[in-house]
Amino acid sequence: MIVAFSITPIGAGVSVVEEVADAVRIVRESGLPNETNAMFTNLEGEWDEVMGVIKACLDKVSEAAPRCSVVIKIDSWSGRGKGRMAEKVAALERRLS
Amino acid sequence: MIVAFSITPIGAGVSVVEEVADAVRIVRESGLPNETNAMFTNLEGEWDEVMGVIKACLDKVSEAAPRCSVVIKIDSWSGRGKGRMAEKVAALERRLS
Amino acid sequence: MIVAFSITPIGAGVSVVEEVADAVRIVRESGLPNETNAMFTNLEGEWDEVMGVIKACLDKVSEAAPRCSVVIKIDSWSGRGKGRMAEKVAALERRLS
Amino acid sequence: MIVAFSITPIGAGVSVVEEVADAVRIVRESGLPNETNAMFTNLEGEWDEVMGVIKACLDKVSEAAPRCSVVIKIDSWSGRGKGRMAEKVAALERRLS
Repeated sequence: MIVAFSITPIGAGVSVVEEVADAVRIVRESGLPNETNAMFTNLEGEWDEVMGVIKACLDKVSEAAPRCSVVIKIDSWSGRGKGRMAEKVAALERRLS
Repeated sequence: MIVAFSITPIGAGVSVVEEVADAVRIVRESGLPNETNAMFTNLEGEWDEVMGVIKACLDKVSEAAPRCSVVIKIDSWSGRGKGRMAEKVAALERRLS
Repeated sequence: MIVAFSITPIGAGVSVVEEVADAVRIVRESGLPNETNAMFTNLEGEWDEVMGVIKACLDKVSEAAPRCSVVIKIDSWSGRGKGRMAEKVAALERRLS
Repeated sequence: MIVAFSITPIGAGVSVVEEVADAVRIVRESGLPNETNAMFTNLEGEWDEVMGVIKACLDKVSEAAPRCSVVIKIDSWSGRGKGRMAEKVAALERRLS
């Protein structure tokens, strides 16, 4: 499955870049395919893998900000193999060119 | 934590009420505080509890529709006790009355 | 269309119930079918109607908190009439009983 | 404001890349800063600008699939200037390097 997630610390000041950086470090050390853009971090893997990473990120950010809002969007396609995250964007760009 | 989630089967026809009903049955048998409205099912519990329920729902819906889109929003407040789902709405209504 | 939306003020303290109450007041005075639960406010109407309400809510909350995170989920079904918000839940409950 | 949005046609078959491509074309012709990744399209502009683009995309996709699920996440920061979409990612990468 491919997952997009964001963690927003609430009540921890208006700039949250430091807390977000801690979470992105955990994502990059996970070994799973990942990409962080202006709004979400995308991640590809099995349910337990991606949810384990998101849980670790939430635990880390919660140290600085006890209250957090988390948004997760999952594109789940059972029976499909890996590499869909890169392939999805490539298929779109082929269609657009 | 309080969680709102929705599971949308893709490519399984335009009306998805049967698949959604299967998922809501799993939620109601979970024993966790829950409420289903027109857009999301709300659920309260620890991370492993709520994610276990959502995973079971996704597995069930995936039997009928291999591809699903899942949206999850979490209100996580570490150190807070249970009963926040009911209390949040009650606090809002007190403020509005 | 049916819309679920939430507005989270960032950097405005950990409890945001007052800001949320201001927004819910605007929703209830809109005349559109609406329902507020622990995670989202649901609203039914045409695009311009519901987006006008959400914009007014965001403007109000932004007075207290310049930075806000807004999450919107839309169930759009072109050609369908009104009353879907209530009917969706009723259809689900009939299936479950 | 910065907006991430996705439009999922329901009941229009399991592969939705053609409908998504139509929507991305509209985004790219809008003149607003934009970026499409595996899960969302990010867009920067004023409320009326970005909502106008999302509405045009939804209208286009609805021609092929009357029922659509739309997810929108907004990072709204009133009083801030333009260019935040690029700056947000750059600030994060500086912090991580």
